This record gives sequence, C-alpha cells and structure tokens, in this order.
Amino acid sequence: MKKESVDRFSVSLPPKLLKQFDTMAGEKGYDNRSLAIADMMRDHLVEHRQKFGAEEIAGTITLVYDHHKSHVQETLTDIQHDHHEVIISALHVHLDHHNCLEVLVVRGPAGQIKKISDALIAAKGVKHGKLTVTTTGKDLAG
Amino acid sequence: MKKESVDRFSVSLPPKLLKQFDTMAGEKGYDNRSLAIADMMRDHLVEHRQKFGAEEIAGTITLVYDHHKSHVQETLTDIQHDHHEVIISALHVHLDHHNCLEVLVVRGPAGQIKKISDALIAAKGVKHGKLTVTTTGKDLAG
Amino acid sequence: MKKESVDRFSVSLPPKLLKQFDTMAGEKGYDNRSLAIADMMRDHLVEHRQKFGAEEIAGTITLVYDHHKSHVQETLTDIQHDHHEVIISALHVHLDHHNCLEVLVVRGPAGQIKKISDALIAAKGVKHGKLTVTTTGKDLAG
Amino acid sequence: MKKESVDRFSVSLPPKLLKQFDTMAGEKGYDNRSLAIADMMRDHLVEHRQKFGAEEIAGTITLVYDHHKSHVQETLTDIQHDHHEVIISALHVHLDHHNCLEVLVVRGPAGQIKKISDALIAAKGVKHGKLTVTTTGKDLAG
Repeated sequence: MKKESVDRFSVSLPPKLLKQFDTMAGEKGYDNRSLAIADMMRDHLVEHRQKFGAEEIAGTITLVYDHHKSHVQETLTDIQHDHHEVIISALHVHLDHHNCLEVLVVRGPAGQIKKISDALIAAKGVKHGKLTVTTTGKDLAG
Repeated sequence: MKKESVDRFSVSLPPKLLKQFDTMAGEKGYDNRSLAIADMMRDHLVEHRQKFGAEEIAGTITLVYDHHKSHVQETLTDIQHDHHEVIISALHVHLDHHNCLEVLVVRGPAGQIKKISDALIAAKGVKHGKLTVTTTGKDLAG
Repeated sequence: MKKESVDRFSVSLPPKLLKQFDTMAGEKGYDNRSLAIADMMRDHLVEHRQKFGAEEIAGTITLVYDHHKSHVQETLTDIQHDHHEVIISALHVHLDHHNCLEVLVVRGPAGQIKKISDALIAAKGVKHGKLTVTTTGKDLAG
Repeated sequence: MKKESVDRFSVSLPPKLLKQFDTMAGEKGYDNRSLAIADMMRDHLVEHRQKFGAEEIAGTITLVYDHHKSHVQETLTDIQHDHHEVIISALHVHLDHHNCLEVLVVRGPAGQIKKISDALIAAKGVKHGKLTVTTTGKDLAG
C-alpha cells in the first residue's frame, strides 16, 4: 500500500493548553496527536462552510415529538414531501407509547436545508429538534 | 509584557487538508496558524467537558466515511455490536461511490453514549462525526 | 356433469384498478373474471393459513401508501405505537409528492407480528403491503 | 369531500370459497369485501409486473448475516456502492452480538434490482435474504 503524502509543520502553543488537548485526545481514543488535530480541523471546516447558502451539504435533522398531538405527523409529512428531492429518507423509532424519535437524512443546498429544518422544529407538537450538518465527503480531504 | 512560554511541536497532515484549513483561518481573520489551532482546541475542550452522567438520553450519531478505507466498516460495526443494547438502529445512505453517511439512533446512559460516540468518530477513515443529544421525551413537557 | 352451485355477489372498485386487473387476467390467460378472482382468493388463502405461533421471528413489513389520503398516517402510527415493543424501527422514503414507502423492522412472537402486519396492510389508504419473515439468526447455522 | 367513482360488477363463486374468503378478510381486519378484493388485486398486479425487466419497481431487500464472518460486510457494501443509484438507503439493526438484520430500500428497473438482490443474497456469510417487490405507487390505482 502506497504511503499517503503528508505536510509537516510546527505549531507553538501554551504548554497548559497542549496538555489539556492531549488529555482530551486520549479520552476520545486517539493515540496520535496529528490525527486528533486533523479530525478537529475537518469538524471546523464543516461548520464554517454551512454559512454559505448555496453550498451542498449533507446532514441529519433529529426530531422528538408526541404523535398523539393533533396533526403533528400530518404537518411533518407535508413539509417533508414538499421537499422530497432533498430528503433521502427518514428513520422513525417508537420510544414509548407517546414519544417518537425521527431522524431525516438530508442532502442539498445549505440554505434550503436550514429552512426545512426550521419549519420542522417549529411545528406544533415537536418537543425538541436539531439540525446536524456534516459533509457529502466529496470536498473534504481525508 | 513578559513573553509567555510556548511548547513547540510538529504536526503531519494531508497537504489538501492543511490548505483547506489555512483558507478557513484566513477567512476567519487569523494571520497565525498556531493561534487558529489554539482557539480551535479551546472550543473543543469546552464541548468535551460537558458532563455526561448516568441520566438516560436519546440521540443520534452521524458519521461520514469512505468505505474503501481499509477496515473502517469492520471497526465501526465491531464498536456498534459491543454496545448493541444502546444502539436501536442505524441508517446507511450511499452518498456516492466512495462516501457513506451513517446515522445511529441511540438510547441509554449519557456517559456510555458519549464514550461510544468518541470511539466511532476517532476511528480511522471517519471524515466527520457528530453526536446529537436529544431527549427520550418522557421528562420534557410537550 | 352437474353444474356446481355458485354464489353471486357484487363488487365495487375504482374503474382504473378494475381495468388493470382485467388486463392482467387476460395476460394470464383467463377469459372469465370470476375464475381469475377465485384463483386469486385460493392463492391468498394458502398464504394466510401458514401457521404463525409463539416462536420468535424477525422480519420486515413493507408498506406503500399515499400520505394525502385522509388519516392513513395517523392510523398506521397508532397501530405501530400500540405494539412498539416488537417494532424496532421504521424507515420512511418519500417516493414522490404523494407516495411513501415505509419499511418496519419487527421482532417478536410470529402470531403477534402476523396480526400487526394484517392490520397495517388492511388500513385504508395503503396501496400495497407485504410481510417478509426472516430469522433472528440465532437458530440458523451460518 | 367528493365521493370517488366506482365500477360495480358481479362475481360468481363457489359458496364455500366465498365463505373462506370472508373469514380470512375478517381475520385480516377488513369490514368490506370490496376493499379486501381491491387490495388482493393490487398485490397480484405488483407480483405480475415484476416479471418485466425494464419496468420501474420499488422494493426492499432483507438480509440477515453474522458480521463476524470474514469480509461479509465489505462484500455487501461494495455491491451496494456499485449500484448506489438504485439503493435509496439501508437500515441496519443489531440483533445481538453476532447477527445483523439489514433492509435496503431500492428503486429502479426490475431486472437490475433482481440482479443486485441475487448477488447480495448469494454473498458468503449471508444466512438468509429476501427481495420484496412492491410498487412506486405511481401506476397502481388507489
């Protein structure tokens, strides 16, 4: 297997911060500081890029709601079908007799996805909702 | 003003990732790579130190990875099966020939879920991952 | 040969469905609609009479429906929540503006799962449904 | 709400068969014989149409496998990514420490889907697999 090329550079940090970072990296399961820094950079790149409306993003929208509340499901499904071209699929888990957790996998222009997410989370009967933005993987270096 | 002491160390990164990071740092107004990395580390430390205890949470873990990277899938599946009692199910979307998005629906003690999530995100080959914590709905008024 | 006695009754169907059925019956070689219906009934009786007892099975229930049909979603969700202990999760795909495909992963006593499946498929607004029985893997050699 | 138009026609059946059918329809939860016959017709139409290779179908592929068997996951993922344009998403449930149930939602030309399904089910390590064909809902009268 060909070794992947790397760029090597040096970083200067307050000693205490470096120590705290190394402790955290260990707790997260990294045994290599460069890998931990690389993952952290990718995380910030994903977050930074979601501010640009037309950029294509992938992500998930997590919703918890009580399906007995009047019309909550109809409302959520109507919003989803109006945007079925960016909603790849939805996974529904029955937490108990009342509560549902639904997670939608979405992919499309950041601006449109933000708007759908806002509408779903604001829907009456939704107890809690969160948009998690990630990447389509294409334009993020491995 | 006394100069603060610093620790100097070297980091190895894929060249393309380093370039993407430098561009972002410039857009954010940093003219010094070490300062940008220091701020990013502090940001992650704040997030990492949120307390995750014995209370029951529900949530999702979103992962993007290149399934062609050696053993990434085996690693992810092994971690998941070791904790199958808290992972309700996983939804897998094939983004393109290389990239997968996988979202796991989890439910259990917060501390255990944080640990699984850290292990999955740190796994080699995972480009980006995020734990989204929500509620089981039971103790949250509708 | 003695003429066999028959019961005569009337059926009301959407005109388009009746036309599609007649076309299929013709393609299958029937020249008599009653005979085609009789054979179809016998086919379903054979399937229905498979024994579903107390043994544990795993399986999937696949449903296609038009979510605009009045109350179909509410009905399906109510049935699912009444049996949330055997329904592990449900995956929902938005096929187009009208049509949904939903697949439920189920695990539990065969008899109970057959009953839930029958109720979901018979729900008004469901165009097509199928129970696929598989194994929990435990008692099947690899 | 506008009443939907229906075609009314009469059917002649052996009395015993009609009685058995009515019993089954009752057990399945129908309280209207015409609705039970309509659902049965749609089921046969879906099955009949899957014989035509180029027709677009939707469906699910259910697989049970032991993820510890060497390379089974890599094989399954490689097949899936080679056909990612017809595989909408996959739901993965961890049945126990060894066994996985995976259900794929597929949509595309009947011939291609049959071929993918055969390849997945034949893969070494898969204990049991089933293709369930349904409809995209578009060309099936409601």
